[in-house]
Amino acid sequence: MKKKLRVSVVGATGMVGREILRLLMDRRFPMSDLTLFSSKRSAGTGVEVAGELVSVELLKESSFLENTDLALCSAGKAVSQLVRSWVQGTKVVVVDNSSAFRMDPEVPLVVPEVNPQDLRGHKNYIANPNCSTIQLVVALKPLNDAFGLKRVVVSTYQSVSGAGQKGMNELSTQVQDLFSGKTIHIDHFPQRIAFNCIPHIGTFGDNGYTDEEMKMTNECRKMLGIPDLKVSCTAVRVPVFSCHSESVMIEFQRKASVAGIREILAKAPGVLVADEPEKGIYPTPAAAVETPDVHIGRIRPDISGKNAFHMWVVSDNLWKGAALNAVQIAEQLLKDKLL
Amino acid sequence: MKKKLRVSVVGATGMVGREILRLLMDRRFPMSDLTLFSSKRSAGTGVEVAGELVSVELLKESSFLENTDLALCSAGKAVSQLVRSWVQGTKVVVVDNSSAFRMDPEVPLVVPEVNPQDLRGHKNYIANPNCSTIQLVVALKPLNDAFGLKRVVVSTYQSVSGAGQKGMNELSTQVQDLFSGKTIHIDHFPQRIAFNCIPHIGTFGDNGYTDEEMKMTNECRKMLGIPDLKVSCTAVRVPVFSCHSESVMIEFQRKASVAGIREILAKAPGVLVADEPEKGIYPTPAAAVETPDVHIGRIRPDISGKNAFHMWVVSDNLWKGAALNAVQIAEQLLKDKLL
Repeated sequence: MKKKLRVSVVGATGMVGREILRLLMDRRFPMSDLTLFSSKRSAGTGVEVAGELVSVELLKESSFLENTDLALCSAGKAVSQLVRSWVQGTKVVVVDNSSAFRMDPEVPLVVPEVNPQDLRGHKNYIANPNCSTIQLVVALKPLNDAFGLKRVVVSTYQSVSGAGQKGMNELSTQVQDLFSGKTIHIDHFPQRIAFNCIPHIGTFGDNGYTDEEMKMTNECRKMLGIPDLKVSCTAVRVPVFSCHSESVMIEFQRKASVAGIREILAKAPGVLVADEPEKGIYPTPAAAVETPDVHIGRIRPDISGKNAFHMWVVSDNLWKGAALNAVQIAEQLLKDKLL
Repeated sequence: MKKKLRVSVVGATGMVGREILRLLMDRRFPMSDLTLFSSKRSAGTGVEVAGELVSVELLKESSFLENTDLALCSAGKAVSQLVRSWVQGTKVVVVDNSSAFRMDPEVPLVVPEVNPQDLRGHKNYIANPNCSTIQLVVALKPLNDAFGLKRVVVSTYQSVSGAGQKGMNELSTQVQDLFSGKTIHIDHFPQRIAFNCIPHIGTFGDNGYTDEEMKMTNECRKMLGIPDLKVSCTAVRVPVFSCHSESVMIEFQRKASVAGIREILAKAPGVLVADEPEKGIYPTPAAAVETPDVHIGRIRPDISGKNAFHMWVVSDNLWKGAALNAVQIAEQLLKDKLL
């Protein structure tokens, strides 16, 4: 009989939390108990899980520790900092979707298709990478193994669901207000997002990059185990509800070809090659919604570079970019008897 | 007294045509007569010019040639081919917004800030470049003069008005139909454009690039006079009504710096540097609508490259990317006594 776990979802009423619940049920994750936690704002409400309304508890140390073997946490950095302090020295294992501890050398940062080995020897706290990084690194890993990465330049087209329910609502509301001639309110994004592109996600650092852009660089380096990997990113918010797209230029160390890249990616776990452009087959955010894969197409030589290639990489930022990857980390822990 | 011209606008009822009319009036282009031409579909209708309704004539060789010293033509490739055949051997000068003759070595391809000298010795037919190319080359020219371009990699975020009124309508209609739960119709773009990104503008060629992407390469080479300039482009349609954005990576031959680039661009004609990101100042399509400039910001070193830099370039594709540049070509012809 499979080991059954008491699972807690922290941030169960958020966009990622709800997808985690759905994926735990859909993928029949072995659970003996499921406890939903949230902040004061949502505690006492209910969330539908597999057709039943499950009540949401206020997150408190005692009830959390008493009810949890494994926690999937998606409630922001501050909550993660609290939860980590609670679980230190306990046997409770946490998979954390926030950015709080991703770069902590004691915390494995894992995409199961990329670096499952980093889960070994975990100290009961594991970080889920940033959404835009996950889909990129799923594409980069097999290509690095085959050809050696020399340099990666990424421009992102990121959906508003990356900013949670508030981001989704702001796009909807602004679109409706624009169409009805009302005053536009900007509350959540730094500029109007309806029918606009905003080259500003997160906060700007001294080097002119946002923290969102630097996550791409730093998290790729950590997961691929290449501390000086050359990756640069321009992160742009676009008026799309779900799924992030990325225009990616890769230079390789060893001789690569379009056919070779397609062959490698077609065999790569978690990748769906959609690359027959002349038939209208290429990835789009609309086509990737609620799919588990990283969709890759528009693979072609970079006519401006040497041994350089372009590709277009799309994935559901709430699924592979967040909830699905968190659940897959938990599945990997079980599979490797690390839980 | 200034020379006054009999001006014809071909495609006067289209999106670019209407902006040409508006800019001719706003900029007080010296005209003795203004004749509006269109296809059968719109002939007989009227267009408002400076508050007055001007009737639109069906485009015919005889009335066109009889009424025209200068024609601004924005009615697609087929009409341009016809018009060019009519004006050969006449004194009628045409500024053509279509892509029909841009790469013809006998036809100057001109952005007045970049290569006004190419107008000298024109054979009464001048091409206006592609929208996404114009805004890029305005940025590249002064930087090439200062530092020498080695390589340029561009990812575009192109608005639907680049596909004309039909593109604008399709985005509006799809958004409304999605919000009201109706069936979505896809007529003009290859995929749904509402809340989506489509990495497919134009038609795919044998090298995996679209013709839209290759225009960027070929037209930059022609205008900068560097036949082997290394430029590659990924062209993406985004759900924005007006203004194209571009994420641009540039490698230079000679040592450059962010401060040096900003200084060069701040002095460059047609450029507006908007680059104080920590104050929320950077270009966006919403902020560039109906402005004449190429807005440039997010200027920073490429942390993955050597002597490489990133910037974010936004301009109104109907203005500098089309109508305004066409009118500026006409103004330059007058100024240089080439008309």
